[in-house]
Amino acid sequence: MADYQNYLESNQDRFLEELLDFLRIPSISALPERAEDVERAGHWVARRLNAAGVENVEVLPTEGHPVVYGDWLHAPGKPTVMIYGHFDVQPVDPVELWTDPPFEPTVREERVYARGASDDKGNMLAPILAVEALLQSEGAAPVNLKFCFEGQEEIGSPHIPAFMPPHRGRFACDLAVSADGGQFSETEPILLMSLRGVCGLQVDVHGASSDLHSGLHGGRIQNPIHALTQILGSLRRANGSVAVEGFYDDVVELTAEERAAIARVPFDGEEYLEDLGLDNEFGEPGYTNRERGWVRPTLEMNGIWGGFQEEGIKTVLPNSAHAKITCRLVADQDPAGIIDLLKEHITQKAPQGVKVTVTPLSILGRPYSIAADHWGNRAAAAVLEEMYGREPYQTRSGGSIPITGVFQEQLGVDTISFGFGIEDENFHAPDEFFRLASFRKSQIAYCKLLHKLGESSPQN
Amino acid sequence: MADYQNYLESNQDRFLEELLDFLRIPSISALPERAEDVERAGHWVARRLNAAGVENVEVLPTEGHPVVYGDWLHAPGKPTVMIYGHFDVQPVDPVELWTDPPFEPTVREERVYARGASDDKGNMLAPILAVEALLQSEGAAPVNLKFCFEGQEEIGSPHIPAFMPPHRGRFACDLAVSADGGQFSETEPILLMSLRGVCGLQVDVHGASSDLHSGLHGGRIQNPIHALTQILGSLRRANGSVAVEGFYDDVVELTAEERAAIARVPFDGEEYLEDLGLDNEFGEPGYTNRERGWVRPTLEMNGIWGGFQEEGIKTVLPNSAHAKITCRLVADQDPAGIIDLLKEHITQKAPQGVKVTVTPLSILGRPYSIAADHWGNRAAAAVLEEMYGREPYQTRSGGSIPITGVFQEQLGVDTISFGFGIEDENFHAPDEFFRLASFRKSQIAYCKLLHKLGESSPQN
Repeated sequence: MADYQNYLESNQDRFLEELLDFLRIPSISALPERAEDVERAGHWVARRLNAAGVENVEVLPTEGHPVVYGDWLHAPGKPTVMIYGHFDVQPVDPVELWTDPPFEPTVREERVYARGASDDKGNMLAPILAVEALLQSEGAAPVNLKFCFEGQEEIGSPHIPAFMPPHRGRFACDLAVSADGGQFSETEPILLMSLRGVCGLQVDVHGASSDLHSGLHGGRIQNPIHALTQILGSLRRANGSVAVEGFYDDVVELTAEERAAIARVPFDGEEYLEDLGLDNEFGEPGYTNRERGWVRPTLEMNGIWGGFQEEGIKTVLPNSAHAKITCRLVADQDPAGIIDLLKEHITQKAPQGVKVTVTPLSILGRPYSIAADHWGNRAAAAVLEEMYGREPYQTRSGGSIPITGVFQEQLGVDTISFGFGIEDENFHAPDEFFRLASFRKSQIAYCKLLHKLGESSPQN
Repeated sequence: MADYQNYLESNQDRFLEELLDFLRIPSISALPERAEDVERAGHWVARRLNAAGVENVEVLPTEGHPVVYGDWLHAPGKPTVMIYGHFDVQPVDPVELWTDPPFEPTVREERVYARGASDDKGNMLAPILAVEALLQSEGAAPVNLKFCFEGQEEIGSPHIPAFMPPHRGRFACDLAVSADGGQFSETEPILLMSLRGVCGLQVDVHGASSDLHSGLHGGRIQNPIHALTQILGSLRRANGSVAVEGFYDDVVELTAEERAAIARVPFDGEEYLEDLGLDNEFGEPGYTNRERGWVRPTLEMNGIWGGFQEEGIKTVLPNSAHAKITCRLVADQDPAGIIDLLKEHITQKAPQGVKVTVTPLSILGRPYSIAADHWGNRAAAAVLEEMYGREPYQTRSGGSIPITGVFQEQLGVDTISFGFGIEDENFHAPDEFFRLASFRKSQIAYCKLLHKLGESSPQN
């Protein structure tokens, strides 16, 4: 057994106590009244980095929640690896569905229950503990290290694009490793090949200067709800494909090999529908369910409202109607360009008799993808194969981690995903938990990964 | 001066005090917590009928708010005339826009300000006072009289259709006269030729069993908001005409003469748009603005909702979306038949992957129309011409008074409109008022009308 492994084992009780301590901070980035708690969580991370032996630790301000930086740069000739994670968490509603209060972590049956246990506090703490173990047991790390922990991932990292340019030098590295990720199951590992990008907009339709009686004015003026439904109804075809001109122009079609890799990832379509309470399959023709969710762009309405929404009847002809829409994007779609296409489509479809405005939402992320044989992925695959006894699946995610696009654009660096959450752990839902086995496994895995990366060369 | 006129003049102070007393009752039929006040208003009316010399006064229960009946049937050989009105009022929101509290009536510059002052308490009290004046000054009324005052007009009279059949004998008459109406201006009288019918439905679209993450599930399942916008977008054409098959089948087109009568009613299209803060005309091609609002059927969305509606961003793929729709109908459209056509259209347009249900709303009224040369209208026209010194315009209303359809269907009787509200009196809005001049004029007008009807014969 390696020395770092002995160190990790003999300190595991303390590490668990520290994780529970970290989980007690209600660092919900979406709630303005929790901003101080998010900052408090950042300072907790900074102290923990220091304690691990990481140097130059700083809590860096952004226009929103802070970023925590640290480094250890004493491995000349070795690659510089930046470890990424986030210390903010999702809101806890509906809080009444939690078995225990979300910020009073409890350990039951080898699982830690708390908001953020898996996403991402448990996962982001592991590499810090791994680095402490390496420095304590081996006196040095096998690579140069930088850390970038943010407090706004759960709200789409709105202030990271503006934060990064003046800090380019500080964060320069050869590879980013995201500790915000997972494995397929307790026994099946993955390599994450891509994340979708994201952009969004709000459509506001305004008619008369006030609500009117639908009997007295119906038929004589345009109805904003009707105008909105006509606009929105034109955005997608009946089969779910997007009907906005040019929307698919920059989509890079997958190779047969990439599609085959997706098909190898276990998936039970009937179980999927059953879990969601649905009877029928639905989605863009010519693609599998996995492909629709992982590698095809989408346009989804997140909300719509206007007029009378209560019980009963009010014969009102409302003076406004509104909708929020987000798109998920794939390589090489450009979020800002897609917003422009949508604006043009909506403006062109705007019916007579109403004013239609389109406002981009503050969510913007470029699609992200990485090659399976990238040197970072080769190192990760070797570690995972050693630990799980089997080759990782090549999976993708339909979600978005906008900062990966920022790393690529601003730092010119690729990000591999190396996390140990498992899909059943209720991220973003009540009773979120993290397996203690995953917590321990991830610490060892990070030690092994850093060693493997120390033997690699970015040029390979 | 006729004796009834002397009686009216010498009692005008008392009548005004009585109106103010009536207006103090907050008889809002839409609010369950005001049900007792609606009933209290009904009993107020019953007492006032008794005091006027009306006989057999009763407060009759319905499944909702009560109906007040009374009669005076001592004019053998003369027609039986039923006077209609309603003692319920609209809600008062936004109450902060009222100059004085809506149920503390105040008299300023010869106007009574209060909720219900014009719609319909001031208007419905006038014929009671007129009958009192006739009975007191002439010892008899010139016709047989019945009274039908309801407490649910402002919520679409949902319980009147079921209430009426067992009471057919009681309400049998030769003509109904509605005191729920108005004149074009202080100097220009009208005859109301038609009211539109009404029906409504709610559309509910359900998808997965819970809200989902739009990144992880977007593109893989149907989005209920999108399904709803596609359904609703198909209900009307871009020009505002209704695209539901068969919707116009039973519409009786107006004659050239009827269109000419509409064109004679003063209307300034630019002023109409300006008042509503609109730049462009909109509506079914081939019809004037007046015709679109008065004699063409419509389909209007009153409300829509689903998913995230707050500030900011929530990348949710919601599991339901909803809309409320009402149609205004014209002769000979059947409300129940139109509901069936809409159901069929919506069911047929329902996209794959969601469950769509259509639920009729409890608002249902047949379109109503009456000939200009109906004996009741001839009598009304003669009175109005005498009092205003000019021929009345033949107007129509885009609104609905469902009970007129019930009178026609259940009692086989036509309704003339004989009220003295004026469009600027803020019915359904803050600072509703009624002109004292109209209050006085309407009392005299009812005395004259009853005399004129006494000289008429329903067979003419």
